[in-house]
Amino acid sequence: MHFASDNTSPVPPQVLEALIEANHGYAMPYGNDVATSEVRDAVRAAFEAPEAEVYLVATGTAANALALACLCPPWATVYCHRTAHVEEDECGAPEFYTGGAKLTLLGGEHAKIDPGELERAIGFTARAGVHNVQRGAVSITNATEAGAVYTPEEVAAISRIARDAGLPVHMDGARFANAVVSAGCKPAEMTWKAGVDVLSLGGTKNGLMGVEAVILFDPSRAWEFELRRKRGGHLFSKHRYLSAQMAAYLRDDLWLKMASRANAAAARLSAGLAALPGATLLFPTEANAVFAAWPREGHRRAQKEGAQYYLWPMDQGLEGPGDVPLSARLVCSWCTMDEEVDAFLALIDGGTESVPTQVPPPNS
Amino acid sequence: MHFASDNTSPVPPQVLEALIEANHGYAMPYGNDVATSEVRDAVRAAFEAPEAEVYLVATGTAANALALACLCPPWATVYCHRTAHVEEDECGAPEFYTGGAKLTLLGGEHAKIDPGELERAIGFTARAGVHNVQRGAVSITNATEAGAVYTPEEVAAISRIARDAGLPVHMDGARFANAVVSAGCKPAEMTWKAGVDVLSLGGTKNGLMGVEAVILFDPSRAWEFELRRKRGGHLFSKHRYLSAQMAAYLRDDLWLKMASRANAAAARLSAGLAALPGATLLFPTEANAVFAAWPREGHRRAQKEGAQYYLWPMDQGLEGPGDVPLSARLVCSWCTMDEEVDAFLALIDGGTESVPTQVPPPNS
Amino acid sequence: MHFASDNTSPVPPQVLEALIEANHGYAMPYGNDVATSEVRDAVRAAFEAPEAEVYLVATGTAANALALACLCPPWATVYCHRTAHVEEDECGAPEFYTGGAKLTLLGGEHAKIDPGELERAIGFTARAGVHNVQRGAVSITNATEAGAVYTPEEVAAISRIARDAGLPVHMDGARFANAVVSAGCKPAEMTWKAGVDVLSLGGTKNGLMGVEAVILFDPSRAWEFELRRKRGGHLFSKHRYLSAQMAAYLRDDLWLKMASRANAAAARLSAGLAALPGATLLFPTEANAVFAAWPREGHRRAQKEGAQYYLWPMDQGLEGPGDVPLSARLVCSWCTMDEEVDAFLALIDGGTESVPTQVPPPNS
Amino acid sequence: MHFASDNTSPVPPQVLEALIEANHGYAMPYGNDVATSEVRDAVRAAFEAPEAEVYLVATGTAANALALACLCPPWATVYCHRTAHVEEDECGAPEFYTGGAKLTLLGGEHAKIDPGELERAIGFTARAGVHNVQRGAVSITNATEAGAVYTPEEVAAISRIARDAGLPVHMDGARFANAVVSAGCKPAEMTWKAGVDVLSLGGTKNGLMGVEAVILFDPSRAWEFELRRKRGGHLFSKHRYLSAQMAAYLRDDLWLKMASRANAAAARLSAGLAALPGATLLFPTEANAVFAAWPREGHRRAQKEGAQYYLWPMDQGLEGPGDVPLSARLVCSWCTMDEEVDAFLALIDGGTESVPTQVPPPNS
Repeated sequence: MHFASDNTSPVPPQVLEALIEANHGYAMPYGNDVATSEVRDAVRAAFEAPEAEVYLVATGTAANALALACLCPPWATVYCHRTAHVEEDECGAPEFYTGGAKLTLLGGEHAKIDPGELERAIGFTARAGVHNVQRGAVSITNATEAGAVYTPEEVAAISRIARDAGLPVHMDGARFANAVVSAGCKPAEMTWKAGVDVLSLGGTKNGLMGVEAVILFDPSRAWEFELRRKRGGHLFSKHRYLSAQMAAYLRDDLWLKMASRANAAAARLSAGLAALPGATLLFPTEANAVFAAWPREGHRRAQKEGAQYYLWPMDQGLEGPGDVPLSARLVCSWCTMDEEVDAFLALIDGGTESVPTQVPPPNS
Repeated sequence: MHFASDNTSPVPPQVLEALIEANHGYAMPYGNDVATSEVRDAVRAAFEAPEAEVYLVATGTAANALALACLCPPWATVYCHRTAHVEEDECGAPEFYTGGAKLTLLGGEHAKIDPGELERAIGFTARAGVHNVQRGAVSITNATEAGAVYTPEEVAAISRIARDAGLPVHMDGARFANAVVSAGCKPAEMTWKAGVDVLSLGGTKNGLMGVEAVILFDPSRAWEFELRRKRGGHLFSKHRYLSAQMAAYLRDDLWLKMASRANAAAARLSAGLAALPGATLLFPTEANAVFAAWPREGHRRAQKEGAQYYLWPMDQGLEGPGDVPLSARLVCSWCTMDEEVDAFLALIDGGTESVPTQVPPPNS
Repeated sequence: MHFASDNTSPVPPQVLEALIEANHGYAMPYGNDVATSEVRDAVRAAFEAPEAEVYLVATGTAANALALACLCPPWATVYCHRTAHVEEDECGAPEFYTGGAKLTLLGGEHAKIDPGELERAIGFTARAGVHNVQRGAVSITNATEAGAVYTPEEVAAISRIARDAGLPVHMDGARFANAVVSAGCKPAEMTWKAGVDVLSLGGTKNGLMGVEAVILFDPSRAWEFELRRKRGGHLFSKHRYLSAQMAAYLRDDLWLKMASRANAAAARLSAGLAALPGATLLFPTEANAVFAAWPREGHRRAQKEGAQYYLWPMDQGLEGPGDVPLSARLVCSWCTMDEEVDAFLALIDGGTESVPTQVPPPNS
Repeated sequence: MHFASDNTSPVPPQVLEALIEANHGYAMPYGNDVATSEVRDAVRAAFEAPEAEVYLVATGTAANALALACLCPPWATVYCHRTAHVEEDECGAPEFYTGGAKLTLLGGEHAKIDPGELERAIGFTARAGVHNVQRGAVSITNATEAGAVYTPEEVAAISRIARDAGLPVHMDGARFANAVVSAGCKPAEMTWKAGVDVLSLGGTKNGLMGVEAVILFDPSRAWEFELRRKRGGHLFSKHRYLSAQMAAYLRDDLWLKMASRANAAAARLSAGLAALPGATLLFPTEANAVFAAWPREGHRRAQKEGAQYYLWPMDQGLEGPGDVPLSARLVCSWCTMDEEVDAFLALIDGGTESVPTQVPPPNS
């Protein structure tokens, strides 16, 4: 019963096999290997973007911060949601990589930027001319930090506002596959066709060891990106081991299949929770994360049995009357089993079922 | 016949097996897993340094730049050799991570800092008080970029000068195992016992996919290091995959055994080259890299057969009289076979032997 | 009728005379002159702080940004009011000088930080450990950007919260003299006795050409400050011309006398506005700035006669029904005359009095 | 007998008078005043550059660092002389403002960059592609730090090399007036006509309190410069006091007249020193600084009488045999009198003449 985060999961057998295969003989370093070419081609095909440039890094924070540094000068601001990963979970990496840009924090339901609020904030910025920071870029996360999904139309609405102000759009796609699968659209429709300039395409949370792709749909800043990546210490010499994973991930739609499984598990969990007495959902469950509240006694039972998840916000305590609800975040991954979900639901509902622990092979 | 760099080699089976084993079930992220504890313990044991703090990153540039950022404030300078990796091969990563510190470039044979020159340079710095940059840190590379090795006594001589000026010492140990094996000393003797404060302990060039350890012998700046690592995008969520590799690397002295094999291959290559008519060594071969010059016709034969290595400096050409020597860098790795070396030597000497291509298992 | 800002005023004759006197003969550069010593002594005496270190720079932005850079590391955040000068009017200078720290924006009446909100924000920061930015420093502005004044007790309340979290306190005192005079307290009571660690003591808005003092009540970071100042290009070679102005400013309480005059003018203006039909004050007038709203027709009359001031916020327009109120900011300075105030009040009230334009000598 | 530096001199009466005149009434801040327009027009006329953009700052370090930040990205290098002010005397300000660019240090006689060495260094940079820093900009100082002057042809030779590599050229003109007067050319011939893109035009060393102009002959980066200036804390609110000084400086060729006087004094001093027994010139005296060596006993006599100058390098001592020469730097300014020079020469030659101390009015 592990719902702490999708970054606690193992990788699927396809990824291990790809690493084993990539390990034969010598390979030229720094991305001059065949697997890297394969990745580039696969991304261009998957996104219907033959001109796009594609770069791999090992963490989502690196992907986001490097992307934003190419889009936003030091004296400008990045418009993002108040709870965006770039604001809350990267220890100031965007500020570091941009050379001291600001983040302008916006509201909006389910961690989606409210378009009206974005428009007003852009209008407000730089009214004092040289005295305050300038308009830099817009960054949205899809799927969002609250487990919701922007539709392509919603992305396009944000992009239009950005475009009207001459601003580029970055998408933090740490859970991009979950979003695309949820929206039932094509990758291109969710990105460049909806006005996104740069995508951080997550691999890690959805089944790789630590590989993210940065996709520059407009390749004009590609060389700058390469220099910033190297300078940030994010250019791998034995690059084939990143590329091999990403190639396996994209092959035969593995990335989409894994995201589907994670989303399905979350949907099952969400439906189960919603049906429990005293439980409520905090946000709609549109991807692989469930935010819900249920009575304290259910939490106590779950934690006693070793269920792993975070109370949300984290600084709450379990003490207090058993029937008062407490909120929590539960994240499913490609390897979350239905039995695990059902056992967890039974547990917080008062059940005593035993819980399976084996991780199944994916796609079997 | 692949001598381009040690970063073109595959990883040994032990490392693949460690990854496969690490892939079972869920693991807490960001270094809160058992493999990371094992690495910490193993490093402390190998270096006889029970207080040391140990952090993993994926590239040598990240290791060096993060280490220097903790040692040198923005308004100071890092003393290093003119040909140091931190100066020549990191696209300014130390300047980026320190917030704009300088590098003061020093001479010295075989890419080892000349102690007298270091002493004079330190004496010169900050003579103008607030008007110029201040003394920051000393950084040495061992084994050096020229394939030489500082002995523990030579390291201590550098450290004494640094210590007298109140400066910390960083060692870029991208090829640290090769240096230790070459010097026949213990890791502790080459580092903290000789006055080194922070070591970038290389794993990648010596057989991992992309793992380096930063060892802070003085743990007082550990928390700052952790924040800088996260902010630089170098904290891995699925940290177990870094730790598992490093743990395998340190287990049963695998790292030292692999470095021994690489050094032995280089020694064989170096001896063979020295014996060729018209060939000369540029530097003593003390680790796993050979710098030598031999007649152009030998280069032509080698390159025609697909031998991989870099002319050194890189911007020379093969055209010209066949008997004029050209210099080159040849790097051996844990998987360089004697047969490969011999075939290469025969080739540039005019032979026509066929060359084996299979990579052998290590330690067999 | 010039109420645009206190930075549009001339300097008083004492300052010009001090410059003329300072211009005799040679003087050692970079603060090694007698005037600089006099300033140091005068500040220490005025603030009853014999250990304080005192440095001069030419702009308030430099003073604030350098001060914050000494108090807040790159991976931390500065807590300040949502409308603080460091957030709204410095084009990201704090982010630049700190190396990419954040500013956490807080609410509170009259541009004073709400203590409860500060406490909650500090409590919230760094809950995710290494994943988000850390607690850095607290910065308050006194007098505030809304023309209000923190009492020493209110400053102490903020400082206590900061101190409990181990955070230093910076005060942006661009209008510090106006605040001290308004509160009727001693400079020491408003600063270090109330827990302030570093004060940016404004001279420019209150009558100098461009001189601000940074006062480090705790001198332990003095050398770092000097290096950051030099590196920022803010160390003057002909330093005597800064020092002579600041010395004249502090001599015979000139700074306090000038602030008193500005405050008195603002009080007269505020009282007059409050008495006008259809006019309201937006904030209490406690220093030298008045924020008020009055009918559009009054604005039209004023602007037609060339009265200088900013609508607040700036992006409003004069078009529309004449009886609808519009808000504005009116700033008085040491040389605002009662006649000017009265003429302005008469004008917006429908009068047609002619307006004097000559600037009177101060303290006469 | 004050030869320590030209930054120890007072300002001429014209500058004081300009300040007094500028002090009448209110003036719009931040450069929106009439004096700033006058300066812009005067610079454009003096440099025959009607499109140039002109910005004022208060220190040479700010002028240089801001200019270089607009010309050189963080991942590139500035080619400059080993003894350039930007390298030796700015505490890393260029590194700070560029966001961590490098400085590549070159040799050349009299602190002038050797063109061949520049060409080789540019050729060498970026040979390793993404792995090392890229080519950024070229910066030369005129007059140089050794008191020599580049002719327009020499500037053009440097610029041609830069242009061929696509690099912009910056000129540190802290003593630009001295250089122009010495070369007997027009300002345009020494700058944009010789390929200079940005000039830091010094005012401070040549008679202002602290004013430098940055002239962008190509105005395309003007807005970026304005933002960087503000963000660096170098935009003055009471800007008229900078502008008034610079306007007076440029009016009626005052700047050139003052530089002529300083150069003439240095020439007199240089000729006198060259004629002394045991004395030698270290560099040709082409501007207002004299570098010479003479016997220790002469130094002792001079220093006993309170003569002010720096031994060069600074860390030499006076102890030792009296007839052994010691080298020194002697800088003349607009107010150095012939009597002062003669008295100094007599003193080190063994004389005992009394020395005048009064500063004469300029241009009388």
